[in-house]
Formats: sequence, structure tokens, C-alpha cells
Amino acid sequence: MHWLTNCWYAAAWADEIKPRERLARRIIDQPILFWRDDAGRVRALANRCPHRLAPLSLGRIEGNVVQCGYHGLRFDGDTGRCVQNPHGPLLGALAVRPYPLVERHRLLWIWMGEPDLADDREIPDLSFADRAPEHAFSKGYMHTVADHRLLEDNILDLSHGDYLHVATLGGGSFTRATVQVEECGDKLHVRWVAQGEKAIPIWQPELPDPDALTDMTTEVLWYPSGVMFLGSELAVKDTPDAGLATWNAHIMTPETAVSTHYLYCNSRNYRVDDAAYNAAITAGLAIAFGGEDKPMIEAQQEQIGEADLLDCAPTLLSIDNASTRARRIYRRLVEAERAAIENPVGATA
Amino acid sequence: MHWLTNCWYAAAWADEIKPRERLARRIIDQPILFWRDDAGRVRALANRCPHRLAPLSLGRIEGNVVQCGYHGLRFDGDTGRCVQNPHGPLLGALAVRPYPLVERHRLLWIWMGEPDLADDREIPDLSFADRAPEHAFSKGYMHTVADHRLLEDNILDLSHGDYLHVATLGGGSFTRATVQVEECGDKLHVRWVAQGEKAIPIWQPELPDPDALTDMTTEVLWYPSGVMFLGSELAVKDTPDAGLATWNAHIMTPETAVSTHYLYCNSRNYRVDDAAYNAAITAGLAIAFGGEDKPMIEAQQEQIGEADLLDCAPTLLSIDNASTRARRIYRRLVEAERAAIENPVGATA
Amino acid sequence: MHWLTNCWYAAAWADEIKPRERLARRIIDQPILFWRDDAGRVRALANRCPHRLAPLSLGRIEGNVVQCGYHGLRFDGDTGRCVQNPHGPLLGALAVRPYPLVERHRLLWIWMGEPDLADDREIPDLSFADRAPEHAFSKGYMHTVADHRLLEDNILDLSHGDYLHVATLGGGSFTRATVQVEECGDKLHVRWVAQGEKAIPIWQPELPDPDALTDMTTEVLWYPSGVMFLGSELAVKDTPDAGLATWNAHIMTPETAVSTHYLYCNSRNYRVDDAAYNAAITAGLAIAFGGEDKPMIEAQQEQIGEADLLDCAPTLLSIDNASTRARRIYRRLVEAERAAIENPVGATA
Repeated sequence: MHWLTNCWYAAAWADEIKPRERLARRIIDQPILFWRDDAGRVRALANRCPHRLAPLSLGRIEGNVVQCGYHGLRFDGDTGRCVQNPHGPLLGALAVRPYPLVERHRLLWIWMGEPDLADDREIPDLSFADRAPEHAFSKGYMHTVADHRLLEDNILDLSHGDYLHVATLGGGSFTRATVQVEECGDKLHVRWVAQGEKAIPIWQPELPDPDALTDMTTEVLWYPSGVMFLGSELAVKDTPDAGLATWNAHIMTPETAVSTHYLYCNSRNYRVDDAAYNAAITAGLAIAFGGEDKPMIEAQQEQIGEADLLDCAPTLLSIDNASTRARRIYRRLVEAERAAIENPVGATA
Repeated sequence: MHWLTNCWYAAAWADEIKPRERLARRIIDQPILFWRDDAGRVRALANRCPHRLAPLSLGRIEGNVVQCGYHGLRFDGDTGRCVQNPHGPLLGALAVRPYPLVERHRLLWIWMGEPDLADDREIPDLSFADRAPEHAFSKGYMHTVADHRLLEDNILDLSHGDYLHVATLGGGSFTRATVQVEECGDKLHVRWVAQGEKAIPIWQPELPDPDALTDMTTEVLWYPSGVMFLGSELAVKDTPDAGLATWNAHIMTPETAVSTHYLYCNSRNYRVDDAAYNAAITAGLAIAFGGEDKPMIEAQQEQIGEADLLDCAPTLLSIDNASTRARRIYRRLVEAERAAIENPVGATA
Repeated sequence: MHWLTNCWYAAAWADEIKPRERLARRIIDQPILFWRDDAGRVRALANRCPHRLAPLSLGRIEGNVVQCGYHGLRFDGDTGRCVQNPHGPLLGALAVRPYPLVERHRLLWIWMGEPDLADDREIPDLSFADRAPEHAFSKGYMHTVADHRLLEDNILDLSHGDYLHVATLGGGSFTRATVQVEECGDKLHVRWVAQGEKAIPIWQPELPDPDALTDMTTEVLWYPSGVMFLGSELAVKDTPDAGLATWNAHIMTPETAVSTHYLYCNSRNYRVDDAAYNAAITAGLAIAFGGEDKPMIEAQQEQIGEADLLDCAPTLLSIDNASTRARRIYRRLVEAERAAIENPVGATA
């Protein structure tokens, strides 16, 4: 399995790690130790002591330093260098790989590739999460036993909402919508326009007339690897009212080839001070993703096994256009990165 | 692993699927969706949507049609053809494999091979199950983590009853019995004749004198793949009385190379209206098969691992005669079927 | 995986098997059945019937004979020969491998290699266990999911006590100790001398002045494969008092390549009649080994996976001197044994 390494991965929600707490999480099959120091800054080191490979997460953390719980070697959280070896000199080999880490948009972003290439301006813009009012923001983390691409495919083809999420998104408007797919460099922009449709079930109670005809536009902006912004706007036909809108992130961070950290959040422009409604949305997202998407996609993964979906002779339809293009971009980027590693610039034959 | 495909497999007891219910079960490593329509007829389709491989069993069933729960494609239960594609034309590739299915002798029989060869006259005769009075019929399903052949071997050598089922079948009469093994085409007929023996423990209470000497004949008729009829008759020596008889099926339907669906049933000619005794027999079969056979055979499987038993240098005895011949017939049929696939009739070099 | 076979393995504590009881345990990946007869003697046979590979441990034991629970063949516990075949002649092939077994030092020792080479004088001297008073002896068994060598490494570098067992052994004295490592043939002798140190935490309450400076000497005698004696003595500096001493065994018997039977015991020269203290020691050992060593070493194993630690580019330190030498001796012995098997003495090219 080859991964894209020169990109920012959302590893966790920022509040998954409180001050003086730690989190061990595998990202693109690398074990990582995250911890937050007293001042609130988060560090990320390879979770493996160079001495005998014990996980550092079983050790002791003091400020910017982690001490291996097995034989006491201490490592600096910024450089990964050994700063104390109770058993001898500070050998150069006694170093742990540090990873660039940025806290932004309520998420912890880790750079898994060449540190010199890490540029935080490339972190996808999910600033809606920063602006979201307290009671108009829901989020969650869901471990999923599936290839990250199956989970991305799911968001890049929202027609599944009509069948898998009948009670909340169903009714057929996603299936009937006009879909535009556009590549913008390495990003993908997908847009569903559904006109003259009854609102999706979850929005009907928010309208003066639940049966009124509406126009809805939904867009997904996909960034490799696996970060997606999803925005949706609905307005009652022929009214000047502002309408309903939500902004969402769906982030699929690979854990292994067949398991994924699914990080999601949602904000909205209505009932923004309604804490009870917000709690219902939080619960509803967990039900929709955990009770509807997850069983379907994990079952799909089970059928596919170790293979790549596209090697299993699926009969692709027009609705697979966006996901197929995203997979192609992803593959191109992975291959380019591998070619660059094998033939570095400046190398001569 | 090669399987026999051109044969009828008992997939389930008919009453495992009520009207409008479904069952997902893997047969010779193929995922199958079974469902019963409102009129009571059972369909069998490959349990895999051709679009993106989601299991159709997670979808919605309406009469003769199953709708994929992921993107709404609908398939006909008889032909497997796509009858509705909400996202475009009814492409020919959008088809699911249908399997011939016959409900007979309280069982659901599926044909896993070439549909044109499916002839329901080849379904083994288990009509005793149809004739069995309500309170003289017990049955069960037992999932077993073992190669189907180990389970067939078990029935083809009933001497194990003397040691593994001491309290019900023990006493040595199976060990001392005269055994005849006869091949009848692709079937195998095994017959144990035990003369002048005390009855097996489970039958002693049914006799006027439990210690009386008896003659017992037991026969097994084995059909590939893994369907066995077992009949047993016991009469007290030198009496004109009709004696005791039971008729049984032991069916070993492969799930995977190392797991098997074990379907069994029992009928009898005594206490035929005794519901309490019937319940005791039902419980007793579950204990004997689940508590005695299953642990032994699963442990045997664990020792063998991925290998074939006969490649593990077992020291075969006379009691292995029937099982060895059944394995040989099975192997011959599998190889013949493969040869026919590789060199179809009418092909020229 | 190649194992050392010509050596004594401690398979179990003697009292794990009461008279007429059995134990099925895998040793160097071979399934073994142990049982104790009415007279108290323990037998060890391969736990696999030669007929159809069923585990004999599921059968019936009568004195010196085990009867297979599947088809009733009976085997002699001393020779492994079939002594009764209800289905035919006593074929020579109907034999189970017997293993030399010696009960000594409260342990059951099994010889896994060439029986003619089994010499019980080579059983490591753990006679302290025989001499231990009733209330000055603790022991335990702990199944561990790790390569036996990782567990041996752990005892051969006691500096880990300062970090992993802080509350009982911590304080830094093992880290600061002078360490001597000496090879004595195929054995290894390691000695830690810590002078002018405060006693380790677990011993402080036993001293008149817990803060007094002390001298402590600890030694480990390592025998291949995986048997270690550990003795420790502490005396308050400049006092004539006898001081505190413990004697321990740490035995790592491979179950498979990645799992180990960890057998340990402890005796002491103080509070020898204190049953409550002894119970506390028993509990404390289970906590230290099960709650501190086991999670760390199993996590280490998980990081290493199927590889050999030394192939994972660990950065070895001076504290790894003893464990590296023990691994080298072990490898040399395994290779010599294999060479002897492939080129037996007296063979000519």
C-alpha cells in the first residue's frame, strides 16, 4: 500500500486531547503519539522508542518531553532527539521522528511527508467551524473498518442519501439533481442542483409550508487526501427569504489500508441558539453515519476484501463520475510522489 | 479450493425464512441472498450489487424485487436483471446471478452450477421428513468451523458413537457391527448390522426388557455433496414385533473451506404423538451434535489447519473405508467438473 | 521458526495437574497432553491421535493409558504405543510420540528433542524452590503474547525496574549499578552491584532505617532455553546484619513464535512465617508482571510483528549487552542443532 505523504491529515479533533493528555493513533499505517503540553501546544512523534521499539505512549510525559516507560530514555517533543539517556551517551541514532503539527479549525493536522514541504497554507479551509456558534455546531469521530476511498466515494455521490438515509435526506431530490463535476488542480468540486423539489425530510419542519417547492444546491469540495467540505443551501421557490444552509466537513484519514478515522462536523444558519436541536443533530449524525453509512460501507469492504474496488469489476454509473475522478487524482498524486522519491530532482543516471 | 457446483445444496430449513423475510448465507464461498415473497416462494440471488458490490441483503425487498439499499437499483428475483436504475439506462451488465431454488422436504435446495443442468429429480429423497407426524420430527441447524468432509466422515463411520456418544449410542455395538460399503454410481451406501446386542442406551427404555438381545441395522446413503440419509431399525431378537425405527438427515453444506452449515433432522416410528419426548429428542440432538461432535471435529480441524486431512498422514483403519471412498468420489466429481469447464464439449484444439 | 529441542522446558507448575487430571499445552509449537496418574506420576504424549488427528486431551484417561475420545484407540503413556484398537490390529503406525518428563523443583520438565539425549542432570538448579518454607514462597503462570526472547531480554536487563516498576524496584539503583556479564559455556551470568544506594522501595519497610544506605547485589543465571534464576541480596552499609535476600525463577517457555508460557516464583529469607505478607507478595508479582511487564512487552511485540527484534534496527545500548549475548548463544545452539540434524555424525557424503 502506498500513501500520499506530502499532505496534511486531520488526525483528531483538537479537544480529543486535553492539556497533559496523550493520544496514540495510527495514521497512514504509522504509529503516532500526540500530546498536549501544559501550555496547550500539541506535539506529534513517532510512537516507537528507537531503543527497543516500545510505544512511547506507554511512558511518562513532562511538558515538552516524553520518557519511554521501559528504560527511561527521554525525547524532545519538537526535535524528537534524545535529551536524556540514563544508560550512556546521547547517540545520534537515539532519535524519534517528529511530525509537523498544526491546530486549526478545531482539528489537529499532521504532515506525514517531507517536513520541508509542510506549508500550513495548504490546510483545507474549514473556517466555518471556527465561526460556528456554540449551539450550531456538532461533531464526531467514528472509527470505520473500510478503505478511506470507499468512504470518500460515499460523500462524492450524494444520491445514496435517497436510499440509505431515507428518513432524513430521502425523497429522490439528490437522484434527480443536476450534477456538475469540475477538477480544480488537485481538488475536485462537485455540485448538485435540485430545483422545484419538496425539501428533504430533515428540513421540512423548518419551512412555513413543509410541502412547498424549493431549490437546493449542495456542493462538495474534495481535497486529497480525504478532506471534504460539504455545503448545502435551500430556498423556498420564488421567495426572497434567505433560506436554510448547513456547512459540513467529512474527513477520511486512513488508519490502515482497510480502516479509517472518520471525522465529521456540521454547522447551520437556523436555530443557531437552540441547544436541544443541536443535541438532536449531534445524535442524528451519529445515527446516520454510524447506523446507516458504516454498516453498508463496512459490508462493501468485506465483499471487496484486500482488493481495490475498481479491480472487482463494478458496473460504474454516471453517479460514480466524481468518485472515479477523485480516485484518479489520488492515484496520480501517489504515483508522482513515489516517482519523486525514486528519482529525486538533481539525481543523474 | 474447488467445489462441486453442479449439484443441489440444502441451504436452509424452509422455515428459517418466513414470508417477507430474508436470509443472507454463504454457500460454497458464494454470498447468497434468499427471500420469501408474499406468496411464499423463495428466491435466491447473488448477494452483491453489480454496481459497487454492496450486499443486497441490506436493501429493501418488495415481492419479487430487491432494491439495493445503497443507491436504489432494483433487481428481479427470477432473472436477476436490473428492472430499475434511478441513475440511467438498464445496462446489461447490471445483472445479478440468479440461482435455481427448490423447496422440498422442508428444505431449501439451491443449484450452484450451470442452470441448464439443474434437474430437481436429482434432489436426494428425504421424503420421510414430509411424512413425519408433527410430534415425531426434530430438526436443527448448527454452524460448524470445520471442512464439510470431516463432518461427512463422522457420519460415514458410526463407530464413533460408541466413544463420543457413550450415554446415547454407546455400548460397542457399532464397533462390533458388520459393515458393508457399496458404491452406487456417485452415491455411497453404508450398512451396519449388529446382531445379538443389547439395545443402544437411548432405546433401552423403549423395550419391554431393556436388557433383551436385539438386532439393529443402520444404513447411511451418502449423496454428493454432503447430503446423507441415515435410517436405523432395531428389533428384539426372535420376536415378531415391528421394532423401533428412526429416519434422519445429516446435511453438510459448505460455507467456506473451513466452515459448514450442518442441517439435521430426525423422525421415528414410536411415541409419535408424544410432544414431550419429541422436545427431549430435539434437545438431545443439539447436545449430541453441538456438545459432542462439534468440539471434537472443530478440534480436529484446528490440528489440520489449512491442509487436507489425507495430506496429514493419518493412519487409516477399516472404519475409514466409507469416508475414504466418499472423499474419492467427491474428488473425482470435482475434477471432472473442472475438466469439463476447461475443455468444454465441442471445443477443438 | 526453528526451536531448540534438545533441552528441558518447564511446561507447567507441578500442581497445575492434580492426580487424574490432565493439561493440554503447546510447547515450541507442538501440542502436548500431560496427565498425572493415580500414583502421581505425570506422562507427556503428543496431543494428537495418529488415526485422524483428534486431540487426545478430549479423550478418557485411565491410569497410564489414554483413550482417544473419537474412536476409542488406547495409547500407553510411557511408550506412546497403541495398546488397544477396537477396529483392527495394533499397527505399528498407531503410535503417539512420548516425551521424557521429570518433575523437579515443583515444576514439570519436558524434553522436546532426541530422547536418548535427555539427561535430567541438565535440568537447571532451582532447588531453592524445594527448600522454600510454605509462607515464603509465591508463584504464578502468565500467558504472554510475545516472543520468548523479548521476555528473556526483560530479565537480562534489570534497569527496566527503575522505570517500569517504579513503586517496587524504582529509584535508579539498577541503572547506576555496575553490571558484569559472563558466559559460562552455554549459560550466561549477569551481576548487578549497587553500592551506597537507598534500598529499593519494596525493601525499605524491612529496614530499621528505610533511608539507610545499602549495598545490593543481584544476579541472573540464564540457561537456554529461557530458564533464569534471579537472586538478590541487600545489606545495610557497614552493618554485620545478614540482610535481605530473595531467590526467584523467571522461566519463558515458548508456546508459539509469538506467545510464551511465563512461569515465575519467588522465595525470601525474611518474614518467612508471615502468611499475609506472602499473599501480598503473590498479588504484587501478578501486578508487576501482569500489569507492568506484560502490556509493555506485548506492545513491543505488536510493533515488531512477525520480524525479529534485531532485524528492526533497534539502537542497542550497553544495557542490552546481556540480552544480545543470550540471543547469540541461543541462535548458535539452534543452528548447531539443525546442522547436526542435517549432517548426522557418521554420515558420509
